[in-house]
Amino acid sequence: MSNGKSSVGSDTTTRAGAPAHRPLRVALLGCGVVGGEVVRLLHEQAEDLTARIGAPIEIAGIAVRRPQRDRGGLPVPAAIFTTDPLGLVKRDDVDIVIEVVGGIEPARTWLVEALRSGKSVVTANKALLAEDGATLHAAAAEGGADLYYEAAVAGAIPLLRPLRESLHGDRITRVTGIVNGTTNFILSKMCTTGAGFSEALDEATALGYAEADPTADVEGFDAAAKAAILASLAFHTRVTAADVYREGITEVTAADVASAAAMGCVVKLLCIADRTADGGVTARVHPAMIPTSHPLASVGDAFNAVFVEAEAAGQLMFYGRGAGGAPTASAVLGDVVAVARNRISGTVSRGESSYADLRVQPMGEVVTRYHISLDVADKAGVLAAVAGVFAQHAVSISTVKQSGRGNDAVLVIVTHAATDAALAATVAELRSMDMVREVASVMRVES
Amino acid sequence: MSNGKSSVGSDTTTRAGAPAHRPLRVALLGCGVVGGEVVRLLHEQAEDLTARIGAPIEIAGIAVRRPQRDRGGLPVPAAIFTTDPLGLVKRDDVDIVIEVVGGIEPARTWLVEALRSGKSVVTANKALLAEDGATLHAAAAEGGADLYYEAAVAGAIPLLRPLRESLHGDRITRVTGIVNGTTNFILSKMCTTGAGFSEALDEATALGYAEADPTADVEGFDAAAKAAILASLAFHTRVTAADVYREGITEVTAADVASAAAMGCVVKLLCIADRTADGGVTARVHPAMIPTSHPLASVGDAFNAVFVEAEAAGQLMFYGRGAGGAPTASAVLGDVVAVARNRISGTVSRGESSYADLRVQPMGEVVTRYHISLDVADKAGVLAAVAGVFAQHAVSISTVKQSGRGNDAVLVIVTHAATDAALAATVAELRSMDMVREVASVMRVES
Repeated sequence: MSNGKSSVGSDTTTRAGAPAHRPLRVALLGCGVVGGEVVRLLHEQAEDLTARIGAPIEIAGIAVRRPQRDRGGLPVPAAIFTTDPLGLVKRDDVDIVIEVVGGIEPARTWLVEALRSGKSVVTANKALLAEDGATLHAAAAEGGADLYYEAAVAGAIPLLRPLRESLHGDRITRVTGIVNGTTNFILSKMCTTGAGFSEALDEATALGYAEADPTADVEGFDAAAKAAILASLAFHTRVTAADVYREGITEVTAADVASAAAMGCVVKLLCIADRTADGGVTARVHPAMIPTSHPLASVGDAFNAVFVEAEAAGQLMFYGRGAGGAPTASAVLGDVVAVARNRISGTVSRGESSYADLRVQPMGEVVTRYHISLDVADKAGVLAAVAGVFAQHAVSISTVKQSGRGNDAVLVIVTHAATDAALAATVAELRSMDMVREVASVMRVES
Repeated sequence: MSNGKSSVGSDTTTRAGAPAHRPLRVALLGCGVVGGEVVRLLHEQAEDLTARIGAPIEIAGIAVRRPQRDRGGLPVPAAIFTTDPLGLVKRDDVDIVIEVVGGIEPARTWLVEALRSGKSVVTANKALLAEDGATLHAAAAEGGADLYYEAAVAGAIPLLRPLRESLHGDRITRVTGIVNGTTNFILSKMCTTGAGFSEALDEATALGYAEADPTADVEGFDAAAKAAILASLAFHTRVTAADVYREGITEVTAADVASAAAMGCVVKLLCIADRTADGGVTARVHPAMIPTSHPLASVGDAFNAVFVEAEAAGQLMFYGRGAGGAPTASAVLGDVVAVARNRISGTVSRGESSYADLRVQPMGEVVTRYHISLDVADKAGVLAAVAGVFAQHAVSISTVKQSGRGNDAVLVIVTHAATDAALAATVAELRSMDMVREVASVMRVES
């Protein structure tokens, strides 16, 4: 495809014969599972990438902690590895910085340096974007540089670009997603086999779907970071990880899953961002029951899916692999093509859009439904007393199912929509009642 | 952001206080269901659009056949309507041309005129793009103008931009879509109620899902145009409507649907574009049986969904409303925002990408599986004779089920993958056999 390339800069021609740009040079920060796949794809698809971009992509350097580590024969010379990421970022011959290390620092320092000096950044760093995206966006604006992060949410699924661009003629009202593969694998197992949380987690760990320390996944931190990013893009409002209500899946029991099944539902860890009736937005991550007929209900194993509702477009769903080396690398490379094209045409994509600046409402104001399972004493007056508690808090009951069990009875109550604060106060009062032996299960219901 | 353009508009400021660009002016060609929604959205979302674009959008004129027609109180003055689309396109105060009329001519003349003179074009015209996209792309290149057409395929679903951009770091291997809502409604009805084609078509017509003349939908012309567009984008190869094998759903019977159900399948009209083992591509539209476990099987009613497989990304699916005024207008407006931003920043998006120029293989070379149902004489030697015909054509049989019915028997045969030519020749020979009373059903099977 190219010819006569002596150094980095001379003009070449594309396959079609048009004059081509000098090669664009990439600094890769991190070379683990994702970084290795990025290198492999850059190599294997070099000819196609050159044609699509209008210039070849070359790797200027790869910053890693252990340059000597065996990386399974990546197609790059050993001399390309460095242990000095900041030095690599600062090099004059670098056009594009790809960051797949993760974490807040030192990644932030590297990316701010890159953006301020006008280098394009492609990152998969959801934690940094959710905690301090504003700093990155400001550095991008200052340096007149592109900041792309499709791989940060839902891996390979082209989702952020549709939100950033395709749906800009519409008003998004709600985003509901399954954005963490580990917890979806665990919950899917619990739903299909009746296993408890620990058992399902063990299986996820054994199969490589859960990390040795699964906290970020099972406690919902990973999903919360993604919720912040999605809410920011959907509502043109800056939403950070701290704004997102977060509840993981460690308290979800086999009994919850069975209760869900009994009412035609499955349990999923949902990330929900929506526009509220009073003009604010909410962002939250928690387990919830959803009907088996909901398009998200059948998203199994480690797959991700995001359901988007917009005023004109109606219901949309995006489905695919949310993690893994190759899928994440696909998203990274898609961004690399975009920023590379921008460099060649001398343009920069529109940066952060936070003009709407809507109020992020606290969880207490969120309107949801609840499924509550109570072990109660089986005697006269119990149902009336329990129902009275709901009424006091102005929470309307949708359905009640009572079944006897020796001296006890089980009451399963599903409420109509009410504020989360009212529902939580109702549950707290139920817990304090003598005739309620146990609040066996409490879970939000989404539809 | 530029300033000092006096003709159309004075400088304004955005909600955030930043200096804004002069208003961008839109010519709308066509004001039916989609056009009316475009006008309504431009009006209702004016403030958001201005903030997202960095300039207000104004309607310069709307070309229609009957300016006097009652359009349900659209928020535009009567004087804005014209019966001279070409004159409107040529006006100096028009920046962006939106075409929602459809058909080859005169739409092509209008759009070529617009593009050559450097005006951005947003169109939903799948027929024109599939028949003669090359002329439009050439005009866009000549005029240095943007040509966007997200609304041409799968309505509101952001699909073309992911194919044009997000997946450019990957190699797409196959696109399988349900891209025609009318036929999906009809086939869904046939699958759930056991109705025949005519009966289901009548219901679709009564509910407004089918047009008075349903030919373009039920004969697969609409889906074939979309297949051409999808294949072109997915494979960086120019594929026209004439390259697409096309078979509609008018021959699908209640018996076919029942046969599909008996083997755990449903019948869908699929648009399939794939990369073949010998480096070519295929593009085809035909009814096919797919397993109920396939993500496309549960896409019901008039919804659309497109399943994309790529080497690194794996399996992706995009789902949503494929037609209707508001969903289509959402896609149009998303494109308007994109081309408007480009005008403000003085850039043009990358045009047609057809560098790969892969060979489009004829249907005979396509490798598929077949489901064949035969009414045969119930006597010795029939199965051997029938199996012999398959063997002669080197088509391997996967499963056979024989059941008696008086003097006759029914043979249901599912083949392994073979070329379409071999399968067709096998079926033709079966039809000529005395002991085969009828070839009751022949349908491709995809998985």
